Amino acid sequence: MLNGPIYFDYNATSPIHPELQEKIVEWLPFWGNPSSVHAHGRQAKKLVREARQSIADALGVSPLELIFTSGGSEGNNTVICGLLFSAQAEERKELITTTIEHPSVTRAMDFAETQGFKVHRIEVNRQGELDFFHFERVLSEKTLLVSMMLANNETGILLPIKKIATLAKARGALMHTDAVQAIGKININLGDLGVDYATFSGHKFYALKGTGAIYARRGQEFFNYIHGGGQERGRRAGTENVLAIASMGYMAHKLQKMPEHYEHMLELRDFFEAQILQKIPDAEITSQKAKRVPNTSSVILPGVHGESLLMSLDIKGFSVSTGSACSSGSSEPSVVLRNMGLTRDEAQSSLRVSMGWMTTREEVESFIEALVSIVDHLRNIKNRGDSRANPS
Amino acid sequence: MLNGPIYFDYNATSPIHPELQEKIVEWLPFWGNPSSVHAHGRQAKKLVREARQSIADALGVSPLELIFTSGGSEGNNTVICGLLFSAQAEERKELITTTIEHPSVTRAMDFAETQGFKVHRIEVNRQGELDFFHFERVLSEKTLLVSMMLANNETGILLPIKKIATLAKARGALMHTDAVQAIGKININLGDLGVDYATFSGHKFYALKGTGAIYARRGQEFFNYIHGGGQERGRRAGTENVLAIASMGYMAHKLQKMPEHYEHMLELRDFFEAQILQKIPDAEITSQKAKRVPNTSSVILPGVHGESLLMSLDIKGFSVSTGSACSSGSSEPSVVLRNMGLTRDEAQSSLRVSMGWMTTREEVESFIEALVSIVDHLRNIKNRGDSRANPS
Repeated sequence: MLNGPIYFDYNATSPIHPELQEKIVEWLPFWGNPSSVHAHGRQAKKLVREARQSIADALGVSPLELIFTSGGSEGNNTVICGLLFSAQAEERKELITTTIEHPSVTRAMDFAETQGFKVHRIEVNRQGELDFFHFERVLSEKTLLVSMMLANNETGILLPIKKIATLAKARGALMHTDAVQAIGKININLGDLGVDYATFSGHKFYALKGTGAIYARRGQEFFNYIHGGGQERGRRAGTENVLAIASMGYMAHKLQKMPEHYEHMLELRDFFEAQILQKIPDAEITSQKAKRVPNTSSVILPGVHGESLLMSLDIKGFSVSTGSACSSGSSEPSVVLRNMGLTRDEAQSSLRVSMGWMTTREEVESFIEALVSIVDHLRNIKNRGDSRANPS
Repeated sequence: MLNGPIYFDYNATSPIHPELQEKIVEWLPFWGNPSSVHAHGRQAKKLVREARQSIADALGVSPLELIFTSGGSEGNNTVICGLLFSAQAEERKELITTTIEHPSVTRAMDFAETQGFKVHRIEVNRQGELDFFHFERVLSEKTLLVSMMLANNETGILLPIKKIATLAKARGALMHTDAVQAIGKININLGDLGVDYATFSGHKFYALKGTGAIYARRGQEFFNYIHGGGQERGRRAGTENVLAIASMGYMAHKLQKMPEHYEHMLELRDFFEAQILQKIPDAEITSQKAKRVPNTSSVILPGVHGESLLMSLDIKGFSVSTGSACSSGSSEPSVVLRNMGLTRDEAQSSLRVSMGWMTTREEVESFIEALVSIVDHLRNIKNRGDSRANPS
């Protein structure tokens, strides 16, 4: 017997890790301002310092290469929009990104265009393959920054960031990756990836909302976006969100068990996909053969409207999504899926199922049962409607 | 008997309100993403909506006029830097501010200068009086924005924002006030103030860190600074920090008792100042006669170095500050105090004492005792040093 709504929307946000409940209560007394030199400040500063070290260890970087932010959107805006005002930007007036980025990258790129920069948007097809031909054609000595996500939030596909970074660096361009949807799902070694900047968000891997981090490679200039006090060595102003930062540090420590978490999620995800394809034979998993994070399935269920499916599942006690949470409520089909070459009907019939460390086989089984029965039900309604509309 | 270090640095950050400890544990299960339409999302969205209403009620504005941010620094940057890219900024290329603003305003203004804007910085003297002559001389149809703080963080002086806003609006300029140091200390009615934008931070009035709000008057255009998802009606991207927002909403509700809190802090502050001036006759309270928030004293203690005083008080179990927490650790005397006309020695001998709703008379009495004894001690050491250096 399962209680309460069951969660299959880990890519939108994750539950707070069960162990954090107790830790948060333990940390509440450390409400001091880390910039204060007195006892209250030092307690808070210690929490921030420990968290920074823990995150640095998990990512294989130096603590000073990390800048705490309020989350992924601020991180992406800081790297992209901040750079527009750098000295390099005087010489290099082009940016390269993909057509499947998170809105915080897409809209930051739109802003860059208003500032006179040329933005090249590289396509990814429905098999999850980046158009390298186009990328190599537009990459040049005019390229200021290449910004491409490590893992896509809607399909889970992984872009070959290491290869992209090598090409970008060869032309003297800076390389940024939005790694928000990768952390907690795959192992990340930033040194190995070869990027200059990477963005993370705490609430996508079981920490509190309201914090994230930017990795900025040592020696690479960093451009402030939130100007003010000397926090983060003058790289991001504003009193640190100590509690959330501490929670993110705690979760970074848990990334040591990544191989186990990976296997767990992969097993459940593969089980889910196999079952769905067996029980709903015309269903399709977008980019199923591509390299993907182990927790995400983007399922096309022909003839079923994703929003209706989401509502029906919600009533039955299952939380899923039709795409990015940021565009929830919009009746337009997912831009990312459309840009990957799915038809409007396919995109509108897509369901995003994302799992997490805490997902259980029991939950997946009960979800499969509910999904199959609802798809069947919705199709029956639709068929009856269609036959009424077209009496033979 | 008092336990643990006693806090007199409420302007740097405030303790989390005791009632919030329990509420936070109660809210932890509502970790959903407010943008998600399913049950998990709706629970979170409800918390955010209730908080927005509570804050709107406290400030006398409409809920839709509030935009949640990560705090005061982001808020100030958003209003000031965001506006630089607006249509109005094509026509109006000048900004006006003061010389005693928070670094997040000062540095945002510096950024404006790099973007070709002219910034006029109006002085405030040691009596806390704004140079209106200068202000009226530079205010013109070229002024895009006037940004002046409601209450100063170091001296507590209140600027006549209503009068300034009236003058600014008469010239078609936009008016912003950084109200971070005013909320929780005085009653704020934004309609009455007549500003177009105001900035608030949760952790300065007993809520969690990592959240704040911008008031943007209805009908006045708002310019995105963090681009991305459709949160905050497209005015600020990024998953909402639900827990911190809920805590800020809870505290906004407590602002109903502002007159009581005001009286409580004022009584303790006046008692502190009277005692200090009596027991240390050459001490001086900066801007004592000016209109000030009721919780802040900036005390000049001639012949005593503020940093040494801070350290000695810390050892004795009292947390105070020598100025803005953002510039802590810097050995330079406060820029704000220097800009108000204090000599370098005076600024370096200044101590900032700031109280809060939870400060008790017992705490103030024990603090006065400690302060007087330490000042006496430090002066003795200094005099001995001086007489050795200059043997007569």
